[in-house]
Amino acid sequence: MSRSTLVTGIAELTTNDPETGERHRDPGDRLLGTVRDAALVVRGGVLEWVGAGAHAPDADARVDLGGRAVIPGFVDSHTHLVFAGDRGAEFAARMTGVPYDGGGIRASVAATRATPDDELRALVARRMGEMRAQGTTTVEIKTGYGLTVAEELRALRIAREVTPHTTLLGAHVVPPEYAADRAAYVDLVTGPMLAAVVEAGGPALAAYVDVFCEPGSPHAFDGDEARAVLEAGRRAGLGLRVHGNQLGPGPGVRLACELGAASVDHCTHLDDADVEALTAARGTTVATLLPGVEFSTRSAYPDARRLLDAGVDVALATDCNPGTCYSSSMPFVIALAVRELRMSPAEALHAATAVAARSLGLDRRVAVGRPAELAVLDAPSHLHLAYRPGVPIARTLDL
Amino acid sequence: MSRSTLVTGIAELTTNDPETGERHRDPGDRLLGTVRDAALVVRGGVLEWVGAGAHAPDADARVDLGGRAVIPGFVDSHTHLVFAGDRGAEFAARMTGVPYDGGGIRASVAATRATPDDELRALVARRMGEMRAQGTTTVEIKTGYGLTVAEELRALRIAREVTPHTTLLGAHVVPPEYAADRAAYVDLVTGPMLAAVVEAGGPALAAYVDVFCEPGSPHAFDGDEARAVLEAGRRAGLGLRVHGNQLGPGPGVRLACELGAASVDHCTHLDDADVEALTAARGTTVATLLPGVEFSTRSAYPDARRLLDAGVDVALATDCNPGTCYSSSMPFVIALAVRELRMSPAEALHAATAVAARSLGLDRRVAVGRPAELAVLDAPSHLHLAYRPGVPIARTLDL
Repeated sequence: MSRSTLVTGIAELTTNDPETGERHRDPGDRLLGTVRDAALVVRGGVLEWVGAGAHAPDADARVDLGGRAVIPGFVDSHTHLVFAGDRGAEFAARMTGVPYDGGGIRASVAATRATPDDELRALVARRMGEMRAQGTTTVEIKTGYGLTVAEELRALRIAREVTPHTTLLGAHVVPPEYAADRAAYVDLVTGPMLAAVVEAGGPALAAYVDVFCEPGSPHAFDGDEARAVLEAGRRAGLGLRVHGNQLGPGPGVRLACELGAASVDHCTHLDDADVEALTAARGTTVATLLPGVEFSTRSAYPDARRLLDAGVDVALATDCNPGTCYSSSMPFVIALAVRELRMSPAEALHAATAVAARSLGLDRRVAVGRPAELAVLDAPSHLHLAYRPGVPIARTLDL
Repeated sequence: MSRSTLVTGIAELTTNDPETGERHRDPGDRLLGTVRDAALVVRGGVLEWVGAGAHAPDADARVDLGGRAVIPGFVDSHTHLVFAGDRGAEFAARMTGVPYDGGGIRASVAATRATPDDELRALVARRMGEMRAQGTTTVEIKTGYGLTVAEELRALRIAREVTPHTTLLGAHVVPPEYAADRAAYVDLVTGPMLAAVVEAGGPALAAYVDVFCEPGSPHAFDGDEARAVLEAGRRAGLGLRVHGNQLGPGPGVRLACELGAASVDHCTHLDDADVEALTAARGTTVATLLPGVEFSTRSAYPDARRLLDAGVDVALATDCNPGTCYSSSMPFVIALAVRELRMSPAEALHAATAVAARSLGLDRRVAVGRPAELAVLDAPSHLHLAYRPGVPIARTLDL
């Protein structure tokens, strides 16, 4: 039997389990299931005991965190990690208003296609390591820089080596070679591409299918095209995720709710019917906000308060990608959510752990019998995630 | 003689010396003195050679940075690191609009006074370590949580142990015990407090005197009070720094320029006369912007473009303090400067190194004979400081 480790010196433990908290000082504590002066015992990567430090049992080894906060590891439920190339100059041009055509997403597609498996694998590993170093223990990875059957499958295989939470985003953009015949590209995604995914294992290779539904954009997909992709994905046995209502109003959010998608992401431009649909879809469809995108594109932020006040399940993720947000930092996203989206620190942490997890079919409570997927903060409270913006205070707790 | 180390694999070197750059692709390169595919040789902490990697000389040891960018270490020219206590709950209350009176700055004063020297020293050391880990090699530290002669001197001594760039900020706020007799507190600062600093070494203990000039605030100092503090500091042989025009219009900026202060900091609320004074003071008085404060207090940002376009010397710093901005991250400040202040990435890096250094009387060029105070980025270009917000890509280059 593996050795047990007792972790003490936890000034504040967030369990995401309102039943666990012993003393609730405010609504944030209730949401987060806060235990102060806590301890926990881990054996073989599984939580064996969680509770007040004063009642902690003995164990084979001890780790004293010296008054730090422990939180559930962040769940980054929306990333695009499988890519090559550098678009830093494109970012700088956008920020300074200088015209620039480095090719945008096409540049990432060309660079990714030209990169051998091992190099691409190394890039993904480096980004995953960067995320773990910032407290993220669970990552969803989308494809979308291959845009051929072979390249999308290659990206899925590389992603699957590092996470089970993989998403086929063949419908990221209409590739330039199909500009004159968009329908042919939708046919490719809904036909041969999904058939190849099924042939290669279906959900064992791609847990989800996703589509960039944005009817105002010539490169993205309108409501009918998005429906075709999502319905084909569902027939193939995959879960559904949607990029919706990022750049303007559109049918993406309502479509996601109608089809029971696990998540609809961005949700920046919503009307009353969208919010009603999300409220009705509570428990099924999570609204995932990605404020790093609005930060890095200098755009208006989504209205998180409207969603929260309507009872919508709101998650937070990075959207880590080379074009619109190359941040892998969940603490940064939380700081933005508090400053710009007016989420409370507790709502933001809950969104970045419990709700993001739910969108991946996971339970991110810190409780006996569950995996010890935790992060530790160089701070006495989770409040410091937003109180100390930019400071790398979070890291995964490796025991 | 100490051993020399050749550093290779520098994809991009920022020298802050326009003469050094070999190839200038854009105005940013000219400002930064960019050398691509660079190398450098360090011996005994001093730069012995800087140039193109292809022409690098031999050395006793080699370090290959594998295609990373190297920049001058950040100069954080405005911090308040000597404090104790935790004001995370005050921050959370402010962000969520909940009434809260945890005492504000008075809470920090009480906690700091109650903390023994060794504990305070440990807190400062931890914050300094955090800064070095994020690429900052030079730090200015202000007092201001003591507000008695003995406590301000204690804070100066503790600060002086870790940096020569120390600032007496006895005039941070009017302490509550002087609320009924503000003049008596100004007399204390300009009289016994400065006399004690002179007695204890003058500039060898406090390089600067500073004052929080904000006539609209009952806790801060008006123009006449600020002038009295600054003139007394000057008579005591100290350099001058000013907190000016943070919360509203006021005389702080013009006063700083008139008296030849090294820096006037915040500069959020300026009129035409303020900008004209700063332009005329170019070469003497730096305008130091602290956008982390506006981020952490949800306030409007200063107009950096107006200052830059008027030819003002603009620096960036964190203002790391427990009340209005508890960030120690210069990369975060640069990301805010690009996103919110519309500075170009090159202008922001220049402000955070060369200009901030100038405000401390330092030259932060990377050139032969100068100290090797450098930072290395986990990225091929300094552009990634803003392109990758929140991601800890910078660290000091320790050789």
